[in-house]
Amino acid sequence: MKAFVRDRVVPFEKDKRWTDHGPTDDLRRELNALAREAGVFAPHAPEEYGGQHLSHIGRAAVFTAAGYSMLGPVALHCAAPDEGNIHLLDVVARADQRERYLRPLATGTVRSCFCMTEPAPGAGSDPSLLQTTARRDGNDWVIDGEKWLITGAEGAAFAIIMAKAHGDGTESAATMFLADMSDPAIRIERTLDTIDSSFVGGHAVVRFDGLRVPAGAVLGEVGQGFRYAQVRLAPARLTHCMRWLGSAIRAQEIATEFARRRTAFGRPIGEHEGVSFMLADNAMDIHLAQLTIWHTASVLDRGDRASSESSMAKVICSEAIARVADRSLQILGGLGTTRDTIVERFYRDIRAFRIYDGPSEVHRWAIGRRILTHGGN
Amino acid sequence: MKAFVRDRVVPFEKDKRWTDHGPTDDLRRELNALAREAGVFAPHAPEEYGGQHLSHIGRAAVFTAAGYSMLGPVALHCAAPDEGNIHLLDVVARADQRERYLRPLATGTVRSCFCMTEPAPGAGSDPSLLQTTARRDGNDWVIDGEKWLITGAEGAAFAIIMAKAHGDGTESAATMFLADMSDPAIRIERTLDTIDSSFVGGHAVVRFDGLRVPAGAVLGEVGQGFRYAQVRLAPARLTHCMRWLGSAIRAQEIATEFARRRTAFGRPIGEHEGVSFMLADNAMDIHLAQLTIWHTASVLDRGDRASSESSMAKVICSEAIARVADRSLQILGGLGTTRDTIVERFYRDIRAFRIYDGPSEVHRWAIGRRILTHGGN
Amino acid sequence: MKAFVRDRVVPFEKDKRWTDHGPTDDLRRELNALAREAGVFAPHAPEEYGGQHLSHIGRAAVFTAAGYSMLGPVALHCAAPDEGNIHLLDVVARADQRERYLRPLATGTVRSCFCMTEPAPGAGSDPSLLQTTARRDGNDWVIDGEKWLITGAEGAAFAIIMAKAHGDGTESAATMFLADMSDPAIRIERTLDTIDSSFVGGHAVVRFDGLRVPAGAVLGEVGQGFRYAQVRLAPARLTHCMRWLGSAIRAQEIATEFARRRTAFGRPIGEHEGVSFMLADNAMDIHLAQLTIWHTASVLDRGDRASSESSMAKVICSEAIARVADRSLQILGGLGTTRDTIVERFYRDIRAFRIYDGPSEVHRWAIGRRILTHGGN
Amino acid sequence: MKAFVRDRVVPFEKDKRWTDHGPTDDLRRELNALAREAGVFAPHAPEEYGGQHLSHIGRAAVFTAAGYSMLGPVALHCAAPDEGNIHLLDVVARADQRERYLRPLATGTVRSCFCMTEPAPGAGSDPSLLQTTARRDGNDWVIDGEKWLITGAEGAAFAIIMAKAHGDGTESAATMFLADMSDPAIRIERTLDTIDSSFVGGHAVVRFDGLRVPAGAVLGEVGQGFRYAQVRLAPARLTHCMRWLGSAIRAQEIATEFARRRTAFGRPIGEHEGVSFMLADNAMDIHLAQLTIWHTASVLDRGDRASSESSMAKVICSEAIARVADRSLQILGGLGTTRDTIVERFYRDIRAFRIYDGPSEVHRWAIGRRILTHGGN
Repeated sequence: MKAFVRDRVVPFEKDKRWTDHGPTDDLRRELNALAREAGVFAPHAPEEYGGQHLSHIGRAAVFTAAGYSMLGPVALHCAAPDEGNIHLLDVVARADQRERYLRPLATGTVRSCFCMTEPAPGAGSDPSLLQTTARRDGNDWVIDGEKWLITGAEGAAFAIIMAKAHGDGTESAATMFLADMSDPAIRIERTLDTIDSSFVGGHAVVRFDGLRVPAGAVLGEVGQGFRYAQVRLAPARLTHCMRWLGSAIRAQEIATEFARRRTAFGRPIGEHEGVSFMLADNAMDIHLAQLTIWHTASVLDRGDRASSESSMAKVICSEAIARVADRSLQILGGLGTTRDTIVERFYRDIRAFRIYDGPSEVHRWAIGRRILTHGGN
Repeated sequence: MKAFVRDRVVPFEKDKRWTDHGPTDDLRRELNALAREAGVFAPHAPEEYGGQHLSHIGRAAVFTAAGYSMLGPVALHCAAPDEGNIHLLDVVARADQRERYLRPLATGTVRSCFCMTEPAPGAGSDPSLLQTTARRDGNDWVIDGEKWLITGAEGAAFAIIMAKAHGDGTESAATMFLADMSDPAIRIERTLDTIDSSFVGGHAVVRFDGLRVPAGAVLGEVGQGFRYAQVRLAPARLTHCMRWLGSAIRAQEIATEFARRRTAFGRPIGEHEGVSFMLADNAMDIHLAQLTIWHTASVLDRGDRASSESSMAKVICSEAIARVADRSLQILGGLGTTRDTIVERFYRDIRAFRIYDGPSEVHRWAIGRRILTHGGN
Repeated sequence: MKAFVRDRVVPFEKDKRWTDHGPTDDLRRELNALAREAGVFAPHAPEEYGGQHLSHIGRAAVFTAAGYSMLGPVALHCAAPDEGNIHLLDVVARADQRERYLRPLATGTVRSCFCMTEPAPGAGSDPSLLQTTARRDGNDWVIDGEKWLITGAEGAAFAIIMAKAHGDGTESAATMFLADMSDPAIRIERTLDTIDSSFVGGHAVVRFDGLRVPAGAVLGEVGQGFRYAQVRLAPARLTHCMRWLGSAIRAQEIATEFARRRTAFGRPIGEHEGVSFMLADNAMDIHLAQLTIWHTASVLDRGDRASSESSMAKVICSEAIARVADRSLQILGGLGTTRDTIVERFYRDIRAFRIYDGPSEVHRWAIGRRILTHGGN
Repeated sequence: MKAFVRDRVVPFEKDKRWTDHGPTDDLRRELNALAREAGVFAPHAPEEYGGQHLSHIGRAAVFTAAGYSMLGPVALHCAAPDEGNIHLLDVVARADQRERYLRPLATGTVRSCFCMTEPAPGAGSDPSLLQTTARRDGNDWVIDGEKWLITGAEGAAFAIIMAKAHGDGTESAATMFLADMSDPAIRIERTLDTIDSSFVGGHAVVRFDGLRVPAGAVLGEVGQGFRYAQVRLAPARLTHCMRWLGSAIRAQEIATEFARRRTAFGRPIGEHEGVSFMLADNAMDIHLAQLTIWHTASVLDRGDRASSESSMAKVICSEAIARVADRSLQILGGLGTTRDTIVERFYRDIRAFRIYDGPSEVHRWAIGRRILTHGGN
């Protein structure tokens, strides 16, 4: 796996099709083909769709290896949001929904998006602020609202939409719906310019104007939207950690190689403690991220929800890996500020990870509250 | 001044001519015209060229106000590298050089670049690794070498080139030369893709292949290149601090406004200590940067070289201001990761400031060495 | 001044009379005599009591020089709480109170204490939790309550007591009272074992059981207790910063000297960047503390209350100086963990300064709130 | 085990026999008796001496539980330096040495000390600076030198002494010797006043003036001193981490309980994010320390030397646990600065752990060097 990423994927990092809004679908398909050919495509997918349904520990090994190149997860089809959506659909979707949505997604025929986040004053860190509504109308639901930062919306075949259901005996019941992105009532207003650039399709503003879906478009049950979001979130957070850990390992390799080769003030810069201490701190941060991922994965693998563990892992990994990116860039000096190495993109992308899937502050708040309620450790 | 930047310059931040390689020359000229019209153009320039030859304390006020928009220094013509080059030429250039190079530069007719940094294994943090050579040939010097990260080279009318002079009684004597960028022996190989985007012309790789300049092209004296670099560097570092402080003040305003308005978990996020402590830390970092700038400026104004003070100011300000950028982006959450506010560009640009004009590590090394030699304080 | 502290006071740092509960009164008197002899005693005291009524900027210079030895402020009689009490009485006390309390205090004949802080659930970071009561009884007030962490209570001649006045037209009006510590209704229950050891008399638990004082014992006006506390607090915080800055300068000198002399791995440890970067960071933290003190002092000197500036100065200095203590101890290695240098005591004492006169968290909260109310800077 | 420490050991924390130079031998014996009675005495000792010869993973559980009270390791006889000396003797000692030294030590009949560290300019972070000499004289060795920071020397029955052997075919060969502390040629010059206070006997300065020991007093082989020091060091570092982790858990419990109970500004302080974020960060630091300890223990248990892992564990744990101590003290506010809770002692003791068994800087240097030599991860 590591050889595949290193030998076959890394060369594409200079490809012009890797734009500021992510790799194009064309590049994605070319990388997917390579991965299929090498027999490493979508190893996490359910077995019925050709995958190996990896355990969380198994994912830790594979996704970290994939993350060695920021294009690796794209090639293996284990990037966000598709990877999390496959998991969610696998747990929640009805048989017909599996066939219609999960099969093409798990096999990489199509891409998907997950429409939860809304611009202010809507749902962000606080999901209860959800503004998008789904109103019952006969056998249908009619969805209205605006979402943003919707990763991969541009080019996605379908969307999972979070909305507050009104009617059919419910009032304001957070619910997930499935809808084809080709529906003209779904409009991609713009693709946002963002600090990161590794997600296919970038991040978009998406509007639903009277989007009409049948009763069967509900994913799982009405009113269970927040619960399903948790089903998706805890593992999804951790797979982000895994992939980014791979990039941290890569950055450390690049910085180490540079520190060996580049000379200043009479010796390789790596022989200056100002540099070698940064390499040591990188190694310790990588080590901690690794241990935290393994631990949380093993808790998930024994069937626990791992809310607390995945929350801590998210904060620890996103911050530790961001420090690795920062130090690696610093070691590279002027070179680090350029796109001549991948570290520049990594540094920018990792910044967003301290925000998405829950900013550090929301996790600290939740961890602190749990301590006060349940005890100090 | 603050009103000019806020009312006239800020609106251009959404202008398409602000590219990833900086504002275009077209945009720059439009902004310069506005500044001239408002009577705020180039207040630091020598009086003979229409400026007010501001003291360092005076610059602190004006450049900080300009930096409130990242386009402000471009508008006022007080951005790097021109601002530093004006200072250097004002101190060192001969009368004919002043007329030919300084006058058009100080009046904003042309732009310039400063060609010192080289790719590995050349001059970077350690200037003694200088590889570019100037060999005496009759009455001329012939310059060969490669430079990179040359800010504003694309579109510059002339360059100040650092090279090791050989011949004419010298051997390896670091020397500065003036040359027209239109000379065909100067080739811009490529404009680098960099993490920052605020400098007109971006950062380029520049080659000199047998560039022939007359003896009179030497700036100041042969062999004084490193000394002149210091003349340029100490104030140039500080003006970077001033401009970036302005951007920090702006980011804090944006974050504060958002923290007042955006609600989560039942109240404005600014009423959560997780956010308000970040605002408080921003205020303290801005305060410290301000005090450090004023102090160093006052030391420079009394004629001191301020090597130690400007070194400390560079580390303190570049790190404090980077923390402000980081916290402001974090407070903005998802919005912070987008270019919908200026904070995203600021966060990226400021990253480079911990590297250019001496990485923090080189300054810490120099400060530490001075302490060991001269005493603890 | 610096010479006096270095030559006359420093030798007493090994004196056995410097106990874990602070220097004894006997040691204090010996040091006071030396200071009087050298003409440096109580330079901040009002002129009518033989002092020079130094400006805040003047105090910055003198108190920092005094703090070079942790016994310096004791020698000069400019230590807490007497220094702050002198200031408070000078501003608020009636003529007869000045004569009875301020004169002997300002001239160093006696010591005093300031009884505000209470054990949980009483007044601490949140002064409004004040539990001690003063009930009107005829012409007298009768005070009941428990205070703790009362610095210098043991050996003090009088106390300034904060209590909630009930009666005489008031209900729960925070008020300050003056009382002789010899009153049998005042009981020192115990002297606390604390992490710090530089304050004469240590920190005690003090009980008032039906302490009866006359109406004339009110300091200033009934109900103005919290306002007077602010009068005392802003400058008192800053003088702590000044004194501790002196100790930071001392620690840096000790660490620098050790880094020059001690060899490891083939060279003086100061030539290892792992050590020299710590010295550089110390120098920058000392520099920042110095600038912040000067700035706040100058704001106070122009008659401003400097609430915001002194709050920021308290956080910045207490944290910067604590880092200096920590790094200096680390540089000294095994030696640093012993009382063979003063750094061990300094490290312990400075820890408390991040708590007393408002913990960092309370200041950050206040600074953040002010930003949200009044703007970002 | 946890119940034993909590119910039987914790009450002794207020015992006057816990002095600033550690618990007295009298207190130690009383605690040992309690542990024997409860069947929890010395579970790590070899089975032949009544122990269970716990694996490293087993030690992680037991020593962490013991560390819940700083007196717990004393009670269980698993404190430094005896715990490490038992391990060292178990691996290296000859049968007669086992009988004479290891048996009484492992059964808790006597205490021991480990004489390696020397005052400047001798062996400290850099062991190669070893100054103590052992000169061959007939069948004996004659040892001369000065050691310091020798933990537990006061009251120890015997010492393991590191010295440079000269003679018998060797020259400057680092060698360990066994000697009875009752030998009049061994003199305890003074017990140092140190920041920490948890080790029985404190830390002493020890002189050897012509100490004559027979050839059989060599521990293991001549010239293998540094190798044996490594045998002792890697596990000894880790057991420090285990014990201190227990104290961190305790501090977090105390801080949590206080944050629930203490009110300020209208609610329990734990409901202020300024406090709850500290509790969350404590939880994450404790979690990281725990994971690191488990990982390193498992590497040791599979027979690996774990040099790299134990080096990283030492830095990670000593720094993470120190942060827990610092935050816990801060949460406690004024109470935290007093010895009314154990946190004050913990804060002081843990400071030394960032220095002993290799300061963070020496470990970072070693980790960095390993990366540069062997690769980035």
